[in-house]
Amino acid sequence: MAKKTVTNLPGVYASGVKAGIKPGRRDLSFLFVPDAFSSAAVFTQNRFVAPPLVWTREAQKKNTLRAVVVNAGCANAATGRIGYQNAKRTAELAASYLGIKPNEVGVASTGIIGVQLPMDKITSGLKALLKNPRARQGHLASQAILTTDLCKKETYCSERVGTHRYTVAGYAKGSGMIAPNMATMLGFLVTDVRVPRALLQKLFREAVDRSFNMTSVDTDTSTNDMVMIFSTGRQEFDPKNKRQRAVFEKVLTDACVELAKKIARDGEGATKLIEVSVQGARSEVQARAIAKSIVDSPLVKTAIHGSDPNWGRVAAAAGKTPKVALDPEKIDISFGGAPVMRRGRILPFERDKVRKLLTGKEVKVEVDLHLGKGAARAWGCDLTKGYIDINTAYS
Amino acid sequence: MAKKTVTNLPGVYASGVKAGIKPGRRDLSFLFVPDAFSSAAVFTQNRFVAPPLVWTREAQKKNTLRAVVVNAGCANAATGRIGYQNAKRTAELAASYLGIKPNEVGVASTGIIGVQLPMDKITSGLKALLKNPRARQGHLASQAILTTDLCKKETYCSERVGTHRYTVAGYAKGSGMIAPNMATMLGFLVTDVRVPRALLQKLFREAVDRSFNMTSVDTDTSTNDMVMIFSTGRQEFDPKNKRQRAVFEKVLTDACVELAKKIARDGEGATKLIEVSVQGARSEVQARAIAKSIVDSPLVKTAIHGSDPNWGRVAAAAGKTPKVALDPEKIDISFGGAPVMRRGRILPFERDKVRKLLTGKEVKVEVDLHLGKGAARAWGCDLTKGYIDINTAYS
Repeated sequence: MAKKTVTNLPGVYASGVKAGIKPGRRDLSFLFVPDAFSSAAVFTQNRFVAPPLVWTREAQKKNTLRAVVVNAGCANAATGRIGYQNAKRTAELAASYLGIKPNEVGVASTGIIGVQLPMDKITSGLKALLKNPRARQGHLASQAILTTDLCKKETYCSERVGTHRYTVAGYAKGSGMIAPNMATMLGFLVTDVRVPRALLQKLFREAVDRSFNMTSVDTDTSTNDMVMIFSTGRQEFDPKNKRQRAVFEKVLTDACVELAKKIARDGEGATKLIEVSVQGARSEVQARAIAKSIVDSPLVKTAIHGSDPNWGRVAAAAGKTPKVALDPEKIDISFGGAPVMRRGRILPFERDKVRKLLTGKEVKVEVDLHLGKGAARAWGCDLTKGYIDINTAYS
Repeated sequence: MAKKTVTNLPGVYASGVKAGIKPGRRDLSFLFVPDAFSSAAVFTQNRFVAPPLVWTREAQKKNTLRAVVVNAGCANAATGRIGYQNAKRTAELAASYLGIKPNEVGVASTGIIGVQLPMDKITSGLKALLKNPRARQGHLASQAILTTDLCKKETYCSERVGTHRYTVAGYAKGSGMIAPNMATMLGFLVTDVRVPRALLQKLFREAVDRSFNMTSVDTDTSTNDMVMIFSTGRQEFDPKNKRQRAVFEKVLTDACVELAKKIARDGEGATKLIEVSVQGARSEVQARAIAKSIVDSPLVKTAIHGSDPNWGRVAAAAGKTPKVALDPEKIDISFGGAPVMRRGRILPFERDKVRKLLTGKEVKVEVDLHLGKGAARAWGCDLTKGYIDINTAYS
C-alpha cells in the first residue's frame, strides 16, 4: 500500500502530467488548496533569483497563495524579462482553470537554465493537468517535480493534541543535473492546522532553518530553491495555547527534516546519509554553523565514504568555522555513539569496531563542545566518484 | 641548471636530511638567517592550532626569528602539553647548534596528527642536519618539507629599483594525506630588503591575503598552516620612498602568488590549475569573496574538469557569496578570454571553441560585476576522481 501523501489531507488537490518538456516523463504538476487559510514560503538566498521565484515572492507578499504550478525540464533562470512574462503567464493560465486570482498562484521551475520556457507545451500541458482541479494524486505531483533524482521524496507527519490531530504533509526534490545547469531544491508542504499567515511564515522559516537549510550535498546554492506551505485551516489552533503550538512546531519540523534527509540521502553520487549533531555550543546559531562546516567538509565526506573514523578531519572542520566559540581542550567527538575524542584528547578506540559503525547507509557524527546549550543537526552525504561523474560528464 | 633557491641570497642558509620520521625520505630541514633584520609570520585561522604554531606565534611576537626548523611525517597536532614541550625542545636543540636563542627559532610540523613527535629521531636528526649551519642547500630544504606533494614548490622573484635589486625567494608545500590526517600548507620566504618588522608584518599579511589565502584545493583549513618571511636586511629600504615600497610589495606579492599557484596546481587529484579573476566589485574584499566562492564551488570545479564552459555554475557560485553587492543584470563572464555572458545575458558563443580553451593545464575564468573598482584573483584546481581516491582510500 502506498504511503500517505498530501492529497490525503481534506481540501488538498494535486496531480502531475507529461507536458513534453522532459520527453517521456511527468514534468508538470499542481498543488491546489482552494480554501487555503494561510501560506508561507522561503526562497533561495542566491542573488541570481530566477523569474518564477520573483513572481512567487511578490504573490506571497500580497496575499495567501492557494496553488503552485511546477515544471521540470526548464529552470526559467537567466531568462530576463521574457522569463518573468512566461512565469506570470503560467500563473494566469493556471488561475483561469482553477477559478482563482493569478497572484494566488505560485510558480516553480527546475531544469536547464538559460533557455526560455516552452510556452506551447506549458499551455497545452496546463490544459490537460487542470482538467480536473480536484484530482487527489499527490504521488503523481511529487513525481512530476523530479529531475535526475533517483527517488520520490514525500512526508506525512501527524500528532494528536487534545481532541485534535495536527498533520503536515509534503513533497520535495533534491538535486539533478542537466547541462548547463544547477541543482534545484524544491519543497511543497500542506497542513490542516489553522495557523495565521504571519505566524506560519515565522514558524516555517524556523523549521526550514533547522531542516532544508541544514542540508548540503555540495555547498552550492541554486538560483531556484523554494519551499512553500499551505494551510487548509481545518484543525483549530490557538496561537496562545502553548501545547498546540509546540505540537505544531514539532510536526512541522519533523516533516521538513524528513524531506531534508531524503534530499541528502539522494545527493548526487551519494552512498551514505551523514547526520552531524552538535551540542554544547554557545548558541543554536553557533551549533548550526559548526554542524554545517563539518557536513560540508570534503575531507569529512570522503573519509566517511571510506568508512574511516577520521576525528582529525571532524575537529579541523569544526575548528575552521568562522566566528564561533570553540575550545580545543573541551571538545568530544563520537562516531555512531562510539567516543573517539574526549576533552580534546584522542581515546584509545578500536579502529575496526568504529569503522564498522561507518559502513552502513546512515552515519552519525556527534560533537559536544561543552560550552553552552546550543544544539543543532545537519545532514549531508558522502563525496564519491559518482558525484564527479554526474557533474563532469553531464553534457 | 637548477633554478635559483633561497640560499642564492647572501646570508641565507638551508638544508634538509633524512631523520627517519618518514622512512626513506628527507623529512627534517632548517632555514637560517643569522643576521635577520626582521621577520613576519601568518598562521592558520583554524581554532585547533597545533603546538608548534603556538610556540612559533609566541616567539615571533617576542622578537625577530632567525631560523625555522620543519619536520614532515608528524604534524604534532592534538598532542596537548607534551606536544608543546616537544616543539619547545626542538627549538632549544636547534638554537644550541645555531648559537642563537630558543625563541629565535620557529618550529613547523606536517604529517600525521594525534601522535607525538618521535623526539629520538628529531634529536639525532637535528644533530646531523645542523652539523653545518651554513649549508646552502635550499633545494634540499624545499624537498624535505613535502609530504605527498607531487613536486617541489620554489620561487625566486627579483626586480630592480634605482641602484638596488630587491629579491624575495621562498618555498612551500601543498596538501598531502596520511591517515588520520589533514592537509598542511607551509610557506617559507626570505628577502634581502631591509623592511622593518612591523611594516614587514603588514605587507606580508597583505601579500598572503592576496596569494595563499586566495588558494583553495577543497575549502578545508588545516591546523598547521603557517607562512613566514625573514629579511636579511642587505638591500636598503626607505619606508617613505614610494617607489621602493611599491617594488617591494610587487616582488613580495609575485613570490607569494607563484608559490600559491604551485600549491593549487599540485592540489590533490588536480589535472588543471583554475584562476578566477573578478573585477568591477564594490571593493577588493568583496572581489576576493566572490572569486573564492567561484573557485571553491564543487560544481564549477567538476565542470572545468570536464572542460565545459558552464557559465550557469559560475553565476550561481558568484550569486551565493554572502554579503557582497551583485547585480545579476550587470555581470559579464568569460572563459579564457572568450565572453559567454554579458550584462547578465547569455551570448551566442561557439561551445566547442570555448570548450577547447578549457582543455589546457591552466583555465581562466573572468567575471566583471560592473559595480566598482574592486578586483581580486583566486586559484584552485579541478575536482576529480583522483581527489576521491586520495581522500577515501588513504589508510
